[in-house]
Amino acid sequence: MQSNILNTINSPIELRLINQKDLPQLAQELREFIINIVATKEGHLGASLGVVELTIALHYVFNTPEDLLIWDVGHQAYGHKILTGRKEIFHTNRQIDGVSGFPKRSESVYDAFGVGHASTSISAALGMAIASKLHGDLEKQHIAVIGDASIASGMAFEGLNHAGVTDANVLVILNDNAIGIDPSVGALKQYLTNVKKGIQKKNNIIKALNFDYSGPIDGHDIDKIISELKRLKTIKGPRFLHIITTKGKGLKQAEENQVKYHAPGKFDAITGDLISKSTSGLPPKYQDVFGYTIVELAKTNNKIVGITPAMPTGSSLKYMMDIFPDRAFDVGIAEQHAVTLAAGMATQGLIPFCNIYSTFLQRAYDQIIHDVALQQLPVIFCLDRAGLVGEDGATHHGVFDVSYLRCLPNLIIFAPRNEMELRNIMYTAQLGLQQPMAIRYPRGTGVTVDWKQPFSKIEIGKGIQLKEGSKLAVLSIGTIAKNISEAIEKSKNPDDIAHYDMRFVKPLDEVLLHTILKTFDAVITIEDNSIKGGFGSTVLEFAATHNYKNNIKILGIPDVFIEHGSVAELQKSIGLDVESLTEYFKLFL
Amino acid sequence: MQSNILNTINSPIELRLINQKDLPQLAQELREFIINIVATKEGHLGASLGVVELTIALHYVFNTPEDLLIWDVGHQAYGHKILTGRKEIFHTNRQIDGVSGFPKRSESVYDAFGVGHASTSISAALGMAIASKLHGDLEKQHIAVIGDASIASGMAFEGLNHAGVTDANVLVILNDNAIGIDPSVGALKQYLTNVKKGIQKKNNIIKALNFDYSGPIDGHDIDKIISELKRLKTIKGPRFLHIITTKGKGLKQAEENQVKYHAPGKFDAITGDLISKSTSGLPPKYQDVFGYTIVELAKTNNKIVGITPAMPTGSSLKYMMDIFPDRAFDVGIAEQHAVTLAAGMATQGLIPFCNIYSTFLQRAYDQIIHDVALQQLPVIFCLDRAGLVGEDGATHHGVFDVSYLRCLPNLIIFAPRNEMELRNIMYTAQLGLQQPMAIRYPRGTGVTVDWKQPFSKIEIGKGIQLKEGSKLAVLSIGTIAKNISEAIEKSKNPDDIAHYDMRFVKPLDEVLLHTILKTFDAVITIEDNSIKGGFGSTVLEFAATHNYKNNIKILGIPDVFIEHGSVAELQKSIGLDVESLTEYFKLFL
Repeated sequence: MQSNILNTINSPIELRLINQKDLPQLAQELREFIINIVATKEGHLGASLGVVELTIALHYVFNTPEDLLIWDVGHQAYGHKILTGRKEIFHTNRQIDGVSGFPKRSESVYDAFGVGHASTSISAALGMAIASKLHGDLEKQHIAVIGDASIASGMAFEGLNHAGVTDANVLVILNDNAIGIDPSVGALKQYLTNVKKGIQKKNNIIKALNFDYSGPIDGHDIDKIISELKRLKTIKGPRFLHIITTKGKGLKQAEENQVKYHAPGKFDAITGDLISKSTSGLPPKYQDVFGYTIVELAKTNNKIVGITPAMPTGSSLKYMMDIFPDRAFDVGIAEQHAVTLAAGMATQGLIPFCNIYSTFLQRAYDQIIHDVALQQLPVIFCLDRAGLVGEDGATHHGVFDVSYLRCLPNLIIFAPRNEMELRNIMYTAQLGLQQPMAIRYPRGTGVTVDWKQPFSKIEIGKGIQLKEGSKLAVLSIGTIAKNISEAIEKSKNPDDIAHYDMRFVKPLDEVLLHTILKTFDAVITIEDNSIKGGFGSTVLEFAATHNYKNNIKILGIPDVFIEHGSVAELQKSIGLDVESLTEYFKLFL
Repeated sequence: MQSNILNTINSPIELRLINQKDLPQLAQELREFIINIVATKEGHLGASLGVVELTIALHYVFNTPEDLLIWDVGHQAYGHKILTGRKEIFHTNRQIDGVSGFPKRSESVYDAFGVGHASTSISAALGMAIASKLHGDLEKQHIAVIGDASIASGMAFEGLNHAGVTDANVLVILNDNAIGIDPSVGALKQYLTNVKKGIQKKNNIIKALNFDYSGPIDGHDIDKIISELKRLKTIKGPRFLHIITTKGKGLKQAEENQVKYHAPGKFDAITGDLISKSTSGLPPKYQDVFGYTIVELAKTNNKIVGITPAMPTGSSLKYMMDIFPDRAFDVGIAEQHAVTLAAGMATQGLIPFCNIYSTFLQRAYDQIIHDVALQQLPVIFCLDRAGLVGEDGATHHGVFDVSYLRCLPNLIIFAPRNEMELRNIMYTAQLGLQQPMAIRYPRGTGVTVDWKQPFSKIEIGKGIQLKEGSKLAVLSIGTIAKNISEAIEKSKNPDDIAHYDMRFVKPLDEVLLHTILKTFDAVITIEDNSIKGGFGSTVLEFAATHNYKNNIKILGIPDVFIEHGSVAELQKSIGLDVESLTEYFKLFL
């Protein structure tokens, strides 16, 4: 039996002592380590398997952490974490109080920049490189590793466009595997494919942007990468290395089914077989409610189109892409474009459902304001993964959207309490709406097995009473209603507590609010958005405008960044779980 | 004397009846018309002068408004407006209730898409083109005219990247004059310069993105443009025409001093001489306070760097760029990159002052959250043109920033009341701040002639009482304090009204707020941000948290998009002028 090299490495310092000929064995061990842990603890698999050789080569050649290494997005950084002192705790990956699923500055000096969202690495590396230059350090290296899906995003282009006219010590490594979470799209992807096939010989985009371009080279040939990195290390200024890798490399099933094995859940570490959880008899994911419903609606309304920026699988828009390929669009990691594309479509009478994760809609905020809301165009934003998302953590929670959207004139904001509400608001939205609407719903499973019920129209701006009560009114939006209902049931005085699903953050159901504020002195608002400027805040504004002096309390996401963990754990930590709510209600009874 | 052709044209229908040989004369007349009106009424000059021939050619060749024409940004659309039925009212350009300074859907069917912010045209045109295809219309043309500064923004790249893999009928016309408001920057600009010089023969970026590229051609040769547009009209799919123009074409001084004549104010229509307003003895522009102060600070603190996305002149960062060219960066129209670049710099100990107009910071919202606030990096955002901006109108008012920033953990938000406060907070910010800060200040002139006073440190989170009073407390942030002070003076009972400048939206001065809420029943908050989720809203949240039952009223920008007009006119229209405030205060006395 061979000695285990990985066991001897606690930091890149030990790595650099290893003989180069032993690195392929280390690569093998690192792969197995990643596979064994992700197989049981879950997480992102394919991306990290694809860059095992690159990861080793980077830490072998460069003097990390003095040289600064930035992993774009960070799905691919497991090997990096394991080689930089986190091997022993890597089994806590993505768990509460455990290792983050993404590089994170507060976790390690080797994590030069926190990531999670795509396409930030070039800008960050350039900022660091300019800083080094100003500090008089002309030797320090600044390396951005970015995938072909991420580099197609506008922000990455902006970084390249700036870097190309500097003499900053930036090395951009394009990890080209032709896939992000779903297969890459767009003209740049096609261009890169032609480069790989050898049929694109001229019109080198990267050279046109003033970079010293090299590649493409085989990203699994560790000797070749090391040799190329050593060469590039001696060159100054903006450099670009194009490497070709296979996502999921080393696990047959992951190579063959790259979308599924991006984050496969639990699987057999030897065979790669997924350990499937039976979902029959369970409520659906909200994502599938969206996906099936848009197909259903599109069948009867040919004005409907669907748009996703690079999340066809995650959002379930893939169902529509399969059935109506001409009317459903994956535009790649291009949220800004996605929104203004939708606005352009809406000017011509189409009804675009623009599905963007809440956290990624932050990327298209100006477009919502300037291109959609200002022009009052009926674009329907489906904000997937609103609220706490769980294990993806601080970079991915969708807890600001109510606050940042609520100040926009002309925009309707709705949060469905359950699957039928999501279906029905989607149905309502395509019945000739004259203004834009945002529909926010969470990641994960709903509450209703029998959810495919006939459509019914929802009156815009109308909330509902879910439960009567005599002493305390609880007002909620969205799926947090479930916790509230349970908390009321567990309460010693359930009859005292009324529960209202206000549904619309905007326009508010003012009639209902007047009734509530006249009936109850004690009012609690509950949301899974920030307590700063969210739903509760709009209720306070209404009360102030109309001179109500009720005792109103706002519950929601506190004004701190929430880390990773299961949604249940995180809810408990901020007092939004059933027990905490029951306790809190007591104070008013 | 030649007949006046322009007089005969009320729409492109008449234009198309004109003999092509007479179009150069029309161009001459259109130029003069634009010059004569802008000379006395002010507005954007250079951009429209540069595209006179293109404008005529487009409406001559294409069947507008059936064919859809989108002007990126829209500074250059004056000729378009004049030729499309707005000649007689064009003298009301940018005035209240007059013609908008930008294309606007509600103003004319010829304005296919409302613009103002850069780089939206390709996405919008593509959305329209896809819609036409779905409608079975394969003849309709969809044309985006975009400048070389705008096309370098990431959003434009996203549009090109998508369009290149469609067969949509999109024609992108690159109006290449090597300048936006300030001279263009970046690798793409350098590339385009090399194309024009004939030294860039290979590596055509546009061809690499699958576009049918033609050009570069002389954008002032009307016959050549018409002939090329006619040829392109017969081709399907994504096409790209590169034309070379001169900004300010036809007015010598405007050609020679393109930055100054972008929006020159009043000038002599014959000579081009600017009609200079004496500013001696007047308070400075806030922009200059920023510009001079950052230079002053940078002289003693070598960690300070400055960043502007394409607004060196508008923001006055140009002063620092002149004196410290290595430490002040114009990154082009690339707000996303600007913010993450700053974050990267901050990780290495630099102190970046990132100056972005409030309305454009909407473009970098995710970067503020994900790259700056989450990592608690001490980037200092200087939000220029916060509040109402006046004649630029709805697309440019900076009235959402308090709402969209207030929900972000770790971020300090400050609004200076006057020049010294701006200076002092800038001074304070570079004294080792451990978290990010946003400083919002308005467009235009301040209130203090003798503003260059010695620096003094501002305590973070500390508001101040400006005036004592007995019955009513008015709480404000920022420069709207001036109107309030005057309104109090004009009041019949000035002694009844106390005035507090809270200065910090975040962190709130809780000690001061407790005092105020315990002392006064009636409290009015006033801000030049949206009343939805802004400063007033945070005061309500505080009051609710601490069980105060005061009578609190929120004044600010109402929940509608505010159109163009002078700031004074707009303030009056929404009740934030001195008289309206005096009247409003009466209700509480």
